[in-house]
Amino acid sequence: MSILIKDAENSEDIYIEGNHIKEIGTNVTEADKVIDATGKAVLPGLANTHTHGAMSLLRSYADDMQLQEWLEEKIWPVESKLTSEDVYLGTKLACLEMIKSGTTVFADMYFHMEDAARAAEELGLRSVMSYGFIDLNDADKREQEIKKTKEFVESVEGKKLIKASLGPHSVYTVSDEGWDWIKEYSEEKDLLVHTHLSETRKENEECVEDTGKRPTSYLNDLGVLNERLLAAHGCWLTRQECKTLGSNGVSLSYNPCSNMKLASGGVMPFPWLDKFGVNVCLGTDGAASNNNLDLFEEMKFASLLQKNNLWDATVLPAERVWRLATRNGYRALDLDGGVLEEGWLADLIVVDLGLESSCPGHDLYSDLVYSVNGSCVDSTIVNGKVVMENRKVGGEEKILKEAREQAKDLVNR
Amino acid sequence: MSILIKDAENSEDIYIEGNHIKEIGTNVTEADKVIDATGKAVLPGLANTHTHGAMSLLRSYADDMQLQEWLEEKIWPVESKLTSEDVYLGTKLACLEMIKSGTTVFADMYFHMEDAARAAEELGLRSVMSYGFIDLNDADKREQEIKKTKEFVESVEGKKLIKASLGPHSVYTVSDEGWDWIKEYSEEKDLLVHTHLSETRKENEECVEDTGKRPTSYLNDLGVLNERLLAAHGCWLTRQECKTLGSNGVSLSYNPCSNMKLASGGVMPFPWLDKFGVNVCLGTDGAASNNNLDLFEEMKFASLLQKNNLWDATVLPAERVWRLATRNGYRALDLDGGVLEEGWLADLIVVDLGLESSCPGHDLYSDLVYSVNGSCVDSTIVNGKVVMENRKVGGEEKILKEAREQAKDLVNR
Repeated sequence: MSILIKDAENSEDIYIEGNHIKEIGTNVTEADKVIDATGKAVLPGLANTHTHGAMSLLRSYADDMQLQEWLEEKIWPVESKLTSEDVYLGTKLACLEMIKSGTTVFADMYFHMEDAARAAEELGLRSVMSYGFIDLNDADKREQEIKKTKEFVESVEGKKLIKASLGPHSVYTVSDEGWDWIKEYSEEKDLLVHTHLSETRKENEECVEDTGKRPTSYLNDLGVLNERLLAAHGCWLTRQECKTLGSNGVSLSYNPCSNMKLASGGVMPFPWLDKFGVNVCLGTDGAASNNNLDLFEEMKFASLLQKNNLWDATVLPAERVWRLATRNGYRALDLDGGVLEEGWLADLIVVDLGLESSCPGHDLYSDLVYSVNGSCVDSTIVNGKVVMENRKVGGEEKILKEAREQAKDLVNR
Repeated sequence: MSILIKDAENSEDIYIEGNHIKEIGTNVTEADKVIDATGKAVLPGLANTHTHGAMSLLRSYADDMQLQEWLEEKIWPVESKLTSEDVYLGTKLACLEMIKSGTTVFADMYFHMEDAARAAEELGLRSVMSYGFIDLNDADKREQEIKKTKEFVESVEGKKLIKASLGPHSVYTVSDEGWDWIKEYSEEKDLLVHTHLSETRKENEECVEDTGKRPTSYLNDLGVLNERLLAAHGCWLTRQECKTLGSNGVSLSYNPCSNMKLASGGVMPFPWLDKFGVNVCLGTDGAASNNNLDLFEEMKFASLLQKNNLWDATVLPAERVWRLATRNGYRALDLDGGVLEEGWLADLIVVDLGLESSCPGHDLYSDLVYSVNGSCVDSTIVNGKVVMENRKVGGEEKILKEAREQAKDLVNR
């Protein structure tokens, strides 16, 4: 299968063969499929590096609540009743929304991951998926979690679009022994590790109380800080922690909407992370705390939150934000995507430049980051396959209908 | 002309006669025009209470710059060459974008306002327009500004959709004598007054240095704080200033995106303003500093910025934000709109609830504020007239084409 994207406003023609970008230029004139991108821009697809896809079923279910109350009174009680069908249909809804807003790969962490994988595969979206490992210092539970993790990893072996990763939930929900196992198994299988880090003050305070160390030092001493680690949030990192993360090659997923909405308070210190070479990327978190999965909107929040926080309008300019959402995301997921260059993965999007919100069009990156939202995405291509064209995704009505019914059932269960 | 909006998910049928909501219920079954709102919500239209419409021509022209540099090196040099045709075509672009994202009235402040008024009238959008009065302590300039203001006010007398207001730019660009004239003339003609207040630290510091008073006290002593005053920004208000604004019945337009993007630093203190009864409403500011005019996006920023700033996820919950953007905005503009009740202005929108971003639909207000963006608006009705239906606005291609050409010409002039 080959695809030719012609006459885009911002690029020479892009020729895709199989799942890679084969040629950029004007030599190729024919392909199995030709996309006319007149009046449009062709761009790398976006990478959502931290989400819990199936939580889309809980979008707008509980808002304007303090984090702890939100979790204890609303989210956890519902999650305790979660079935594999919920995860399957919820992840389908999430994938639909991501495809429609230009995301081509996402890093997921949740439960019933075999079902999440099935959903993403059916929609044709690329994913890096981890089972949320929580042992709460309980040896029996740990054995269960190890078993579930291994089963999931084995279940997706050989799948084209899905890469398994490990998902130790956080420093406060996984024991030292749990982390030790994660470390060994990730080395043995060469798997990425996806966790939450420094989201709240509570987490930081309790970690210091329990271990005498801040979360980053604690993880460093456990030997899990390395290029395989993708940590989400980082709201309360000190300068020294940023340095530690940078010198160990850790990637950090910045989730501004979720952090602001749940009032985490701290703001991920982008300038320090940048200074110490941390690979900062972008994530939406789950739809229950955002409440959408639109990385275009997230890019605007990402930049504006830094500017507001640092009283500096020059920080995190548009083109840098764009890189966080594309190349840095793919890099965090150890994938050769997120740039439009020959030989790279054919994960890309075609964006309509003809909307009122990007008119008159003085600067492409400013428009992408500050002006438009995910509804500007006209077509989405993942792994050399068109998963959305002219804003139409196959079977979307059915996905919405089933998600609506399932969500109603879930919260009334 | 009558309109019947039937079968909305959130409301009984709405019957519009002339420019008012005549009846809500199920008695009326026929009308000149029937809108089927199955799967949709019918809601009051949004009020954008602070913008500079024509600046849409400068969207994405200059970003990621410090405020003073942005003004001095980029915005002011271009504005010095601004023609009435620029304002006409730029305001048309702004009106198109606002209609498409569900805004039914906007408060504009700029130059060549006769041309802005003509643009808004042609698109059928309601507006409260003010000529930006700047005398810089120069008596000759003041006479000119008075003349221009009067000419504009007279030019729109009797117009159905346009209300003139006065636009003294700020405490630092208008002299005492200028404010005195504004006060007198607003009383004589019963006109609203639209100004900028406490946007930056610089403004506050200089006002204290020059007058010994903070901006709010200074305006209070000039006698211009009253129910006619609509002040924009309020990033650096003290508790005492909030009290003064409240006891005088002033309305405050909150502009979170622009303030964050230009790194004003301070955050409008919503809880104090609310405590002292200030009518807080919402505005986008101009597209050059936002960079769009989408009040749905602005609502999300409005709430999340407060939550982040106050470390409190319960502050400014979804339904309150919705009220800021609707009823409070209309109230600030002294218009009987922004609610769906019999006898009120027929300024309303029909919103598509069938999008992936508002699925599964647990809570309407959470979805409106946190989940969707302006692209959810299906139809917009202003003053009892349909200005957008099924996302189509008459002549939109021409507006975009002309705006693109005019913007290119403007920045190269």
